[in-house]
Amino acid sequence: MSRTFDTPQDAEDAYYDALEEGNLEGLLSVWDETDDISCLLPMHPLAQGRPAVRDVFTRLFARGQGITLSVKHLGWIDTGDVAIHHVEESPQNKSPDGQPPMAVYGTNIYRRGTGGWRLIVHQNAPTAPPAGRMPPTAR
Amino acid sequence: MSRTFDTPQDAEDAYYDALEEGNLEGLLSVWDETDDISCLLPMHPLAQGRPAVRDVFTRLFARGQGITLSVKHLGWIDTGDVAIHHVEESPQNKSPDGQPPMAVYGTNIYRRGTGGWRLIVHQNAPTAPPAGRMPPTAR
Repeated sequence: MSRTFDTPQDAEDAYYDALEEGNLEGLLSVWDETDDISCLLPMHPLAQGRPAVRDVFTRLFARGQGITLSVKHLGWIDTGDVAIHHVEESPQNKSPDGQPPMAVYGTNIYRRGTGGWRLIVHQNAPTAPPAGRMPPTAR
Repeated sequence: MSRTFDTPQDAEDAYYDALEEGNLEGLLSVWDETDDISCLLPMHPLAQGRPAVRDVFTRLFARGQGITLSVKHLGWIDTGDVAIHHVEESPQNKSPDGQPPMAVYGTNIYRRGTGGWRLIVHQNAPTAPPAGRMPPTAR
């Protein structure tokens, strides 16, 4: 599958759409076709290189459903041929234990090449705990 | 304080040195002097902009000591005027409860400007839990 994304946002929209659909090939078409890409999902080790990234999402989609996320933009850095998007991802799928899903930070980095913009880094991190449980330095 | 870093690694070395020394001004001199910078330390909310980044490290150093980290490079992406470094940071300071310190992932993004390379994003994320406690998708 060959697709061209004219803006970082086009690539980002396609990424979250493919995630929701559980569409592995659609999702992989958003990632750059180079081996310097990296992906860090919650509770996962860092996946580096295209085969490792393919493996992560193959296992994720093996559960049989996509991942629906509500995405809130927190800010972005545009710098030449690289765009860095900070978002907050709130899972919309119900969790097995009925707990409300926890939002996580996401950082998406896109690079412009001859084929348009592609994802080169996706990285999640926990959001801060509630104020009463935050470390003194974060209050 | 005005310093010039000729490579992303020079900036990175200065960052971790200043962190170890608890040297606020030295540390801030590594960050770019623009308002699109962002910093996400463990258990903290995302800090965006230079005043917020200054505030995070002012509070961190108010504990009265620096943070000594053993830094292992996991990989990096060099793309024109932006360099992305993935590292694993292992705290060397003893924790108050005597627990062994937990390593975290760190992503440092540097941008080249007229004054050399400066840090624009620092972001931490937890490393994966031990294999027995990892989600099915990460095994």
